[in-house]
Amino acid sequence: MQVVRKISELRLLRDKLDGRVGFVPTMGYLHEGHLALVKQARAENSAVIVSIYVNPAQFGPREDFAAYPRDLNRDLKLLRVAGVDIVFLPTDDAMYPTELSTWVVVEKVTGTLEGASRPGHFRGVATVVAKLFNIVRPSRAYFGQKDAQQVIVIKRMVADLDMRIEVVVVPTLRETDGLAMSSRNSYLNREERQAAAVLFKALTLARRLKREGVTDAEQIRRQMVSLIRKEPLAAIDYVSIAHVDTLQEMDRIEGPALASLAVRIGRTRLIDNTILE
Amino acid sequence: MQVVRKISELRLLRDKLDGRVGFVPTMGYLHEGHLALVKQARAENSAVIVSIYVNPAQFGPREDFAAYPRDLNRDLKLLRVAGVDIVFLPTDDAMYPTELSTWVVVEKVTGTLEGASRPGHFRGVATVVAKLFNIVRPSRAYFGQKDAQQVIVIKRMVADLDMRIEVVVVPTLRETDGLAMSSRNSYLNREERQAAAVLFKALTLARRLKREGVTDAEQIRRQMVSLIRKEPLAAIDYVSIAHVDTLQEMDRIEGPALASLAVRIGRTRLIDNTILE
Repeated sequence: MQVVRKISELRLLRDKLDGRVGFVPTMGYLHEGHLALVKQARAENSAVIVSIYVNPAQFGPREDFAAYPRDLNRDLKLLRVAGVDIVFLPTDDAMYPTELSTWVVVEKVTGTLEGASRPGHFRGVATVVAKLFNIVRPSRAYFGQKDAQQVIVIKRMVADLDMRIEVVVVPTLRETDGLAMSSRNSYLNREERQAAAVLFKALTLARRLKREGVTDAEQIRRQMVSLIRKEPLAAIDYVSIAHVDTLQEMDRIEGPALASLAVRIGRTRLIDNTILE
Repeated sequence: MQVVRKISELRLLRDKLDGRVGFVPTMGYLHEGHLALVKQARAENSAVIVSIYVNPAQFGPREDFAAYPRDLNRDLKLLRVAGVDIVFLPTDDAMYPTELSTWVVVEKVTGTLEGASRPGHFRGVATVVAKLFNIVRPSRAYFGQKDAQQVIVIKRMVADLDMRIEVVVVPTLRETDGLAMSSRNSYLNREERQAAAVLFKALTLARRLKREGVTDAEQIRRQMVSLIRKEPLAAIDYVSIAHVDTLQEMDRIEGPALASLAVRIGRTRLIDNTILE
């Protein structure tokens, strides 16, 4: 496994690769969810490149950029075991030189949910992913369904800018109580960790209601909200039943819908989602 | 010479090309200036791809998109003679499907000059060029110095988004009276065509003043303005002496400066520029 920091070094190594290249962009502090992406990339491509980069442009000024968990040595061990060929660790100076003034902006699908709660977030995501795509030139790129809106934004960008990259979406991995795996779970103390299960409980409730024939989206949202409110450590940012493509809130559920939510558990903001079919 | 309209067809042909590929994106109605770009691309690469696409996204609602001159048959004849390998004629449906919502936005250098006079223009330029670059995957792309700010915007985008493309800038070609070649010159009637020489005269004056030791930018601007005002058919949009990199207006000229101007001759808006060294 080769570990490179310079863009020029990555390009040299990339040029030597034949066949399909799978790419897994991450912010590090890897968990089983990331490793599921790597495993699938490993199975489907001749070579696998993983990037680890905590992208400052996708964090708001009051968000957790400085505190975001980092453990490079552990990450590299996990990636070596997973059979990764190249790990790319770009520096802030290389990714965001002071003169940088170009941004990739995805409109429409970024107006709601995470895009509404985190202004500028998806501009940062789209821009860094475009840059990484141009550097790595993957055949396929792997993203987790946990970040459902991010997946939609990246797919939109790839289609709109005619990037010839297949975006592969991998199901969310969960802890035994259903909590979606996330690097941010490490922020939770023991009480908060228990309380955090409420996100999955709310999604499970939504699935049950839909399965039982409820198509009134507001009724499902209300029941999710009242379930979450019973958890004293939880504070709702949003609870949404939205169209899977447009991410516009639905009145009546017709066809597949994205049930998603963002909830603060103590000071930690968690997100999760499920498709209501 | 192969002429293709579909993105998928272009990709198939592109995949078969070995070696360096030179790309000349145009809006058609080709003149000697375009052909100089093609000639240089032909000399420096194994294959040359030219696109002809009047990009609606870079025209404002009150601009000349509908009236922009088009003569495809003539263009194709000229490109065949020039030894072009592939001509790409994308359709509006392929380039701007209704669901398109991603834009490439270059900030800072687009706040002045053409960017100030034509809101949204460079967003349209950067986005279509990013799309074309992703479709054509050129080694080198050729642009004319006549669109000086466009060159700066494209270079900025290529650097910022880590596109591995060499941007080659080709000097402006001029008619015998100095008028910069432009597809829009075809709008001019005979009187206007004569009057249009005033742009080059103003730039020549700026060069002479600078050569004579004038470093007060405002003095040069004023003299350019008063020269242009003597031409009854001319109406100034802007006259600028700006920093060649930042495009910020200069007080005192130190190092190379971009002298540029936009002038309406009748209903036709023309631009031109020169570097004051």
